[in-house]
Amino acid sequence: VIPSQTPIASQIPADPRLARLSLNQATTQHWTVRQAVDGCVRAGIGAIGLWRGPVAQAGLADSARMVTDAGLRVSSLCRGGFLTALEPAARRAALDDNRRALEEADALDAACLVVVVGGLPAGDRDLLGARHRVADAVAELAPYAGGCGVRLALEPLHPMYCADRAVLSTLKQALDLAESFPVDQVAVVVDTFHSWWDPEVWEQIARSRGRIASFQVCDFLTPLPADVLLGRGMMGDGHVDFPPFVAAVEAAGYAGDVEVEIFNAEVWAADYDEVLALMKARYLTCVLG
Amino acid sequence: VIPSQTPIASQIPADPRLARLSLNQATTQHWTVRQAVDGCVRAGIGAIGLWRGPVAQAGLADSARMVTDAGLRVSSLCRGGFLTALEPAARRAALDDNRRALEEADALDAACLVVVVGGLPAGDRDLLGARHRVADAVAELAPYAGGCGVRLALEPLHPMYCADRAVLSTLKQALDLAESFPVDQVAVVVDTFHSWWDPEVWEQIARSRGRIASFQVCDFLTPLPADVLLGRGMMGDGHVDFPPFVAAVEAAGYAGDVEVEIFNAEVWAADYDEVLALMKARYLTCVLG
Repeated sequence: VIPSQTPIASQIPADPRLARLSLNQATTQHWTVRQAVDGCVRAGIGAIGLWRGPVAQAGLADSARMVTDAGLRVSSLCRGGFLTALEPAARRAALDDNRRALEEADALDAACLVVVVGGLPAGDRDLLGARHRVADAVAELAPYAGGCGVRLALEPLHPMYCADRAVLSTLKQALDLAESFPVDQVAVVVDTFHSWWDPEVWEQIARSRGRIASFQVCDFLTPLPADVLLGRGMMGDGHVDFPPFVAAVEAAGYAGDVEVEIFNAEVWAADYDEVLALMKARYLTCVLG
Repeated sequence: VIPSQTPIASQIPADPRLARLSLNQATTQHWTVRQAVDGCVRAGIGAIGLWRGPVAQAGLADSARMVTDAGLRVSSLCRGGFLTALEPAARRAALDDNRRALEEADALDAACLVVVVGGLPAGDRDLLGARHRVADAVAELAPYAGGCGVRLALEPLHPMYCADRAVLSTLKQALDLAESFPVDQVAVVVDTFHSWWDPEVWEQIARSRGRIASFQVCDFLTPLPADVLLGRGMMGDGHVDFPPFVAAVEAAGYAGDVEVEIFNAEVWAADYDEVLALMKARYLTCVLG
């Protein structure tokens, strides 16, 4: 049930420089879809990147209605992927799950489905084999994505996650794979945390024209926390120089939203309205620069 | 003082397949040079990679005598580098320290000086600037290395250390830089831990002919420990497929030692004779394959 007094994003006057800012729901880990949508509206943030878990909890149709009623764009749905299983049954289950994720992204009118391709199966050391299985799975999913009108957005993850999360580590790998498919079916994610160290990132962004489906920002912290998944920091708290990324993706033709996706125990423990306020301030000073 | 009863490596019958195995002293973190040398001899290991700290504690001349008397090769001295300082005084100090390290490597008859180039200065986000300062510093040190008859071995570190340890992350970067200098002055390190994820590593090793000064092996563990510096594991305990690396560096002309360098709290807390025994066994089964 959506209260009728829910504010509508377009009624909130917002800094026009914030027009493309999007809250990835992972940043406000403990908010429901309802809370995240309302939080975006209160903060004057016009777009949201949703996650499948909270969407399932809220219900797919209700989630879609909430974002529509609030006037929010859905900059991405997170996430599909995990396509490296060796066993046929596990592989089929993964493909089925990705088809469902594409349908959900369609229902939410999401700009893309973010795809984290998966790491090495337990005990397996054949990295090249895993990469080939990813390519085969993407080939199987791409037409289905086309049918849904949703792009698969392949996300190269930082190489420290190569073993357990994503055997695609660089933008070059992701683009090499994406370019085998129609541009409206397979594209890539540029994420500052994952790619800031990459000496070829500028050349690859420049090459990507039309293939960037999502642009995510957060900072890279040192020392990394005990759980390296939580090393993503608020922009300005780490080592990333953001404005060159903004300029590069714009020069490559990307005009979509800029999602802030922070996995960070301190952020998750904070007051989320304050997180959004800080996120807006840092977006203006550190990202737009 | 060197006890006259110290065994001599050549007197210990060893598996000929172990002929190129080298103990990097970091693996036996708490052993002195004396203990590490004796441990290698007991284990039938013919080479050692020394670290400057324990060498300084033992004395440079005494360390040189110990390895010579034991008949060990010194496969590397670790380490030089940290060449990214912005302040002129800090930069001069780093260059001076690297010249001393080269002199020490010469005195130890080490095959090379391993160079960890350094990360971003505190608060600095200019990654390209840091890389330029590394190139400038290597240009300044290269002729000095030539004069010492010691090669600078540029070590690309895993991208998770880009901010705080090494702004060179890939073998391609290291080779691009090394190739600006004479092959007897500047070369690279191939380290399985740092490069196993790199989709271009095979192509880069193939390109490196004559530029590999050091080949280091250890495994990449997940989950990474709280201190990511200690994520290096015993071969076979992680995700790395070693035999293709051995084949690739040999095909590229590398005929030097294979150093086992493990930073790992459990290994450091173990009995080091047992560590060496396990290291030999895993070298035969996992590395040579």
